[in-house]
Amino acid sequence: MNERGKQVVVLCSGGQDSATCLRWAANRWEQVYTIAFDYGQRHRVELEAAASLAKLVGVVEHRVLPVSALAALAGNALTGSDMVRTETNARSGLPNTFVPGRNLIFLTLAAAWAYQLGTSDLVTGVCQTDYSGYPDCRESTIAALSQTLQAGMEYPFTIHTPLMHITKAQSIELIRQEGGLELLAHTHTCYNGAVPPCGECSACILRARGFSAAGIPDPLLERLGRV
Amino acid sequence: MNERGKQVVVLCSGGQDSATCLRWAANRWEQVYTIAFDYGQRHRVELEAAASLAKLVGVVEHRVLPVSALAALAGNALTGSDMVRTETNARSGLPNTFVPGRNLIFLTLAAAWAYQLGTSDLVTGVCQTDYSGYPDCRESTIAALSQTLQAGMEYPFTIHTPLMHITKAQSIELIRQEGGLELLAHTHTCYNGAVPPCGECSACILRARGFSAAGIPDPLLERLGRV
Repeated sequence: MNERGKQVVVLCSGGQDSATCLRWAANRWEQVYTIAFDYGQRHRVELEAAASLAKLVGVVEHRVLPVSALAALAGNALTGSDMVRTETNARSGLPNTFVPGRNLIFLTLAAAWAYQLGTSDLVTGVCQTDYSGYPDCRESTIAALSQTLQAGMEYPFTIHTPLMHITKAQSIELIRQEGGLELLAHTHTCYNGAVPPCGECSACILRARGFSAAGIPDPLLERLGRV
Repeated sequence: MNERGKQVVVLCSGGQDSATCLRWAANRWEQVYTIAFDYGQRHRVELEAAASLAKLVGVVEHRVLPVSALAALAGNALTGSDMVRTETNARSGLPNTFVPGRNLIFLTLAAAWAYQLGTSDLVTGVCQTDYSGYPDCRESTIAALSQTLQAGMEYPFTIHTPLMHITKAQSIELIRQEGGLELLAHTHTCYNGAVPPCGECSACILRARGFSAAGIPDPLLERLGRV
């Protein structure tokens, strides 16, 4: 850990996990850069949340990259017009919120920016524990991608995944320990882009279960006067 | 090779190498799909060339995906306003036409489309032999990416790279053997987007050397009345 540079790039979607990663990174690196991706997601309010989190933590630069290709490829629930609940895609068995390769694209673009900044450390909130069927969140995928980025850009990237093997409840405990619990009041999780959150989609359900298991009220619901 | 499916996705930039891959693939698969990427490149005429090649070969579908993130990250020679010649980037030592991770992004997006089509075979014209300093064209990178795509999408992708270890002259001989030499008359290579080609940029120089070594006149220059 002593060999790390002064700078880090954190993938910041505006959700609970990226808020935790952001606080974790800000406690360990001097200069934090955040990156978010605009791929036509319906829950665009998450981009506003990402910018708020970056400002609250005091990052050097927050960048929003347009990823029009994912919107073009989509035809899926995150960018389509149907309500998202918990159905799975009949063919793949994966959740209907799955955009194939989405995290691979995001991490590769973040790495390209990090390369330009001269930064080799990346932080992302992917999590294998309750990965909801997303194969691009697993440790084996991130390890393979790390090799690919190193080879493809000839650059010594390290992808840090502090949430990989912990539960949502442990993740909430982690951000509390890191002194960032209040950040969660400014996160966005709901797949349907609703404020207050819909409480019905799989993301809302997962979030609620996490706070319940951690025995901590959700700061977002507190801020919105919902608890 | 007997286990391959009926469909294949070919990355088709509109250049000489993708034309060769396209003919090669059309001789081996029943249904060919092509994909090109619009990332704000100055040599946009190559997108027209890609569409022409796809039409000439008779693909099932030719798709152009917008990749706005690369344009946003660029600040480099391919999307900037400076003339491209043969200078290298002072910091990286790589050619100033290098967009970090560009081929990783393109292949990952092509794989996402292939996943949606139910196709596991991808063909790309990357070449290690005269790779001009692009680390994302090397066999080790493609092997790592293949692992990443398989893990990240849980899908049995195979990335075919028929040009990986051959010279430009051998590549010209290959497309001739495959019966596609005339396709080269409809390709675009020049980094400066010039028609007729500028003859001065590194891409033009590499192309001219290839035809010279192969002892075959360039069908593009013949079509334009330049030989």
